[in-house]
Parts: sequence; structure tokens; C-alpha cells
Amino acid sequence: MQQTVGLIGLGAMGGGMAQSLRRAGHSLQVYDVRADTAKAFAQSGGVACDSLAQLGAACDVVISVVVNAAQTEAVLFGPGGDAAQLGSGCAAAMKPESVFVMCSTVDPNWSIALEKRLAALGILYLDAPISGGAAKAASGDMTMMTAGSPEAYAKAGPLLDAMAAKVYRLGNHAGAGSKVKIINQLLAGVHIAAAAEAMALGLREGVDAAALYEVITHSAGNSWMFENRMTHVLAGDYTPLSAVDIFVKDLGLVLDMARASKFPLPLSSTAHQMFMQASSAGYAREDDSAVIKIFPGIELPKAPVDSAR
Amino acid sequence: MQQTVGLIGLGAMGGGMAQSLRRAGHSLQVYDVRADTAKAFAQSGGVACDSLAQLGAACDVVISVVVNAAQTEAVLFGPGGDAAQLGSGCAAAMKPESVFVMCSTVDPNWSIALEKRLAALGILYLDAPISGGAAKAASGDMTMMTAGSPEAYAKAGPLLDAMAAKVYRLGNHAGAGSKVKIINQLLAGVHIAAAAEAMALGLREGVDAAALYEVITHSAGNSWMFENRMTHVLAGDYTPLSAVDIFVKDLGLVLDMARASKFPLPLSSTAHQMFMQASSAGYAREDDSAVIKIFPGIELPKAPVDSAR
Repeated sequence: MQQTVGLIGLGAMGGGMAQSLRRAGHSLQVYDVRADTAKAFAQSGGVACDSLAQLGAACDVVISVVVNAAQTEAVLFGPGGDAAQLGSGCAAAMKPESVFVMCSTVDPNWSIALEKRLAALGILYLDAPISGGAAKAASGDMTMMTAGSPEAYAKAGPLLDAMAAKVYRLGNHAGAGSKVKIINQLLAGVHIAAAAEAMALGLREGVDAAALYEVITHSAGNSWMFENRMTHVLAGDYTPLSAVDIFVKDLGLVLDMARASKFPLPLSSTAHQMFMQASSAGYAREDDSAVIKIFPGIELPKAPVDSAR
Repeated sequence: MQQTVGLIGLGAMGGGMAQSLRRAGHSLQVYDVRADTAKAFAQSGGVACDSLAQLGAACDVVISVVVNAAQTEAVLFGPGGDAAQLGSGCAAAMKPESVFVMCSTVDPNWSIALEKRLAALGILYLDAPISGGAAKAASGDMTMMTAGSPEAYAKAGPLLDAMAAKVYRLGNHAGAGSKVKIINQLLAGVHIAAAAEAMALGLREGVDAAALYEVITHSAGNSWMFENRMTHVLAGDYTPLSAVDIFVKDLGLVLDMARASKFPLPLSSTAHQMFMQASSAGYAREDDSAVIKIFPGIELPKAPVDSAR
């Protein structure tokens, strides 16, 4: 029996994931707060829904690809609302035993609670944060870090495999997916800040930045983030592929989770301060590698002058 | 004309480097404070010197592979001495225009000064820290981060290529080699401490440690050190391949260098505190991944019980 699949949020990641589902031949309904975006998508296949309730009522599996927990609340329960009072979210309209797949990066304790709140409405739940960036989302090569009940996997599992090259199944109830995603963000954030600190020190000490990059990326000091983000610094290009404020948010989630269990995170809290310093200094919407701009007394590589101007 | 090459310090790295030089057919003289070690080495070729002065007098190039700057001072100038007064180091015996190759991890400002001190004695100098571990040293696959005058490279360059798969030439005078090595140690130290912090948080939150390792090593949160060192934590094996106190020393050198130019390093200083906490808590000589033992309220994976006992 063919399932009807809904996807909410046609942004950088969600748009690519919807393409992957359509490519795999699934019957697809989409919703975006920008109605034009949903209509443009549906011109190549699928149905653009006019409301979250319409999408919720039509679908067996609803995949939510919005920015954070607050937007996910709004998607499910309407703006500031609750399913018991409001019909403007999708939850009140969803069929019994349908599945809600939550792909945002969120506090794991919120995700654990959401599984219970949806169970009370008869809705199954997958805790399923995503990773890999827009290009991998579009090609179906992204990663999903998931956890949930066998019943939820039974219905949504084939869809996960259509959207991601690698689907990690980390537990039988919500939480482990978001926890692993959050810990990945801990490392990613600390590594970006450490890469900036190392490159800044090299510049301060008069080391050639390109030579430093070459040596580090072939040495034990390398990280995925050093190798990726320091190319932006070398090029003097702070176009936001992922912005400083994303790590203000994500390292904040890391610290929220740890605070709930009173667990100390000396490096994460230091890196969070560095991103907040960068944000307050005016670099909030620049690429996250702009955290290097908090270091004083150095001259950063500049982007080549645009000869077309 | 065949050069005579001296190598001082037949430890984990120096022993392998001496093997590489012998394998490449160089006329080799060796010295170690443990006279038996030098004699054992020379049984398969080369000459074991009885003193540093004997080695210095015999060689065109002297390669020093000792632990730190203090030991390098002793190698050159005798214990607590100076070449003008004492002949117990190799410097006073070295020929004019011979080359001293310094392979230790040191404060770059000390290395810069050493080039000048040796120039006053008519001795050329290469600032040439090494990286890669004992196995790569023995197979000639290690990395060298070097800087020095063209005259020094002209004489010692072929020897560097005999010992290392990759020889980075970073500048025309001493300093850049040690600076890049120090910055690599900054990243290595921060990444080990960050890996420990992330794994500790995962254990605190009840995440399966092996699954966390699997996901992170395939995600943007990965680092060379996470991938390498967290296998030790998963195995519960803190056999010191590189000890906690190495990073107490090396991150100390990082902070010394930055302090000399009044440059702030928030993550490096935090990581240094973590390694010092581990050292004071009794883990100084355990593997550097034992920095994870500073985190309270978690149960670390245990090594399998040795069934032979």
C-alpha cells in the first residue's frame, strides 16, 4: 500500500529532501510558510498544501524540516497553541498511527517529551536530526541520526533510506538521535573555534597561512572543520554557508542539555562564549569561520578585489 | 663527498630515524645517555660514540632527537654549561660550517635564539620538529616541519628526505618550523580534550559509546584525534602511547609562545587546565586520552579482564 508522505519546510535541507522523496517515487505533499515556494516545488510533481492541517490530514508520515524546537511546536500545534485548542497545526489533523519525523537540531529532553505528547494524540514519532548540508540533502547523501519505536520505523524507515545515504538507528525511543546530533555539534563548534584560534595564532606569529593549512591538514592536528572552514579564512570569504549564530544556538543547546544533568563542559562553554563574542561584534550572519574575527592584532587574508566592479 | 652524520637520542623517535639513515646508506655515528642502547644499535652498523664531543668532532651534520629544549641545551653545551667553558656538549667540538638539526618540540622563540647562538660558533642550524609517532619514524614515513638557511638545507636536506616522507620547508631562518609544530600541538591537545568532553557527555546522557564513535567519525564533528584516541577510551586501555604530561608540556609551550606576544588563546588555556587537572589527579603517565577521567559522574568502558592471570 502506497503511503502518502508530507514534508514541511522547503529550506536548504528540506527542499533537497523533498526532491529525494519525489525522485524515489513517493506520493508527496509539501508545505512551506512561503506559499510560492511550495507551489514552485509542486510544479515538478507532488501537491502543495494550503495549510498544515490539510497536509496533516492527508499524510501517513509527516517529515518536519524546520529550524528549531519553537518552529516544530508551531508546525504541530499552531503558533503558541496546543492541539487541544487549535487546529492551525498539523497534529490535530493527523491520522491515528501516522508518524511525525522531527529533523531539527533540538534539546534532546524536549524531543523525549514530544514523543510522549504525540503518543497521547495517537501519533508515532521519530527523533531524526539530519547532517550533511544542502548539497548532500539534494542528492540523497545526507546523514540521519535517529531513534524511535519499532512501529515508527516500520512506517517511516523506507522514507529515511530514500532521503539519506546513512541512517543511524540509535535507540527504541526518542532521545538518542538528538543527543548524538547535539554531541556532533559540540565537536563541530569547538573545532571551528579551535581552528580559528590556531590560524589566528599563526597569523600573529608571522607564519604563512597557506603553508600552515597545508601542514595541519596532513597532520594529527587536523579536523573535518579545520580542513573545511579554514579555506574560507584563507580566501577571505565569509559568505554564510553556516552562520555564526547557528553555533550560538547549537552550543547553547549543548550547554542546556548538560546543565540539566549538571555536567561540566569547559571547552564547549568557552567556544560558546567565542561565538557569542563574534555575534555581538557584528558577525552574527557571517560564516561561522568569522569567529576568527574576535582575535585582535592580526591581519586576516582578504578576498581578491572583484575585477568586474 | 660522503658526509658523516651524527644522531643523538635513540628513543622512540630517534631510534627509528637512525634506522632510516642507516638504511639509506649514510655513514652514521650515534650517541645516547644509555650507552648500552647506542652499542646495541651500532651492532647492526654505524659507530656508537662514547661522548657528545666525540660525535660532534666526527660529524658534518648532527641530528638531535631529545625530549625538550633543556635536553637540547645539555646536548650542545653540557649539563648547565656553555660551549665557552665546557667541552662536555657537542657544540664546542663541532666543525665550522657543520649543521645542527633540532628535532624537539620547543618554544619557537628559544629556537630562533639558538640559531644565533650557534651562528656565533660557526655552526649552521635547522629548526626541524618532527611528527608522526614511532612506527612512522622507523619506516621513514614521518613528517618534519622545518626552517633554516639555504646553506643548512644544502648540507642536511638529503638527510631530512631519508628520514621523513614529507619535509615541509617553511622559511629561510629558524622559527617557522617550531611555530607550525606548536600550532599543530595546540590543535591536537584541544581536540583530545574536546573528544574526551564529547564522549564523557555521551556517557552521562546514556548514549551507547560505540555508536557515538561510529556516527562522529563519519560526521563533521570528526577530528584525527577523536578517531585515534577514542578507540583507547572504548577499549578502556590507557597504556601511554603519548602521555597526559606531554600535553601539559606542549600546551604550556603554546601558551608561553602566545604570552610572549600577549595573544589570547581561550580554548588552549582551557584544554591546558584539563590536562593539568588530569595530571594532578594521578593520570600524568597514562595515555593522553585519560583526560576523560577528570569528568565526574560517568562510568567509563572497562578493559576486558585478562584471562591469562
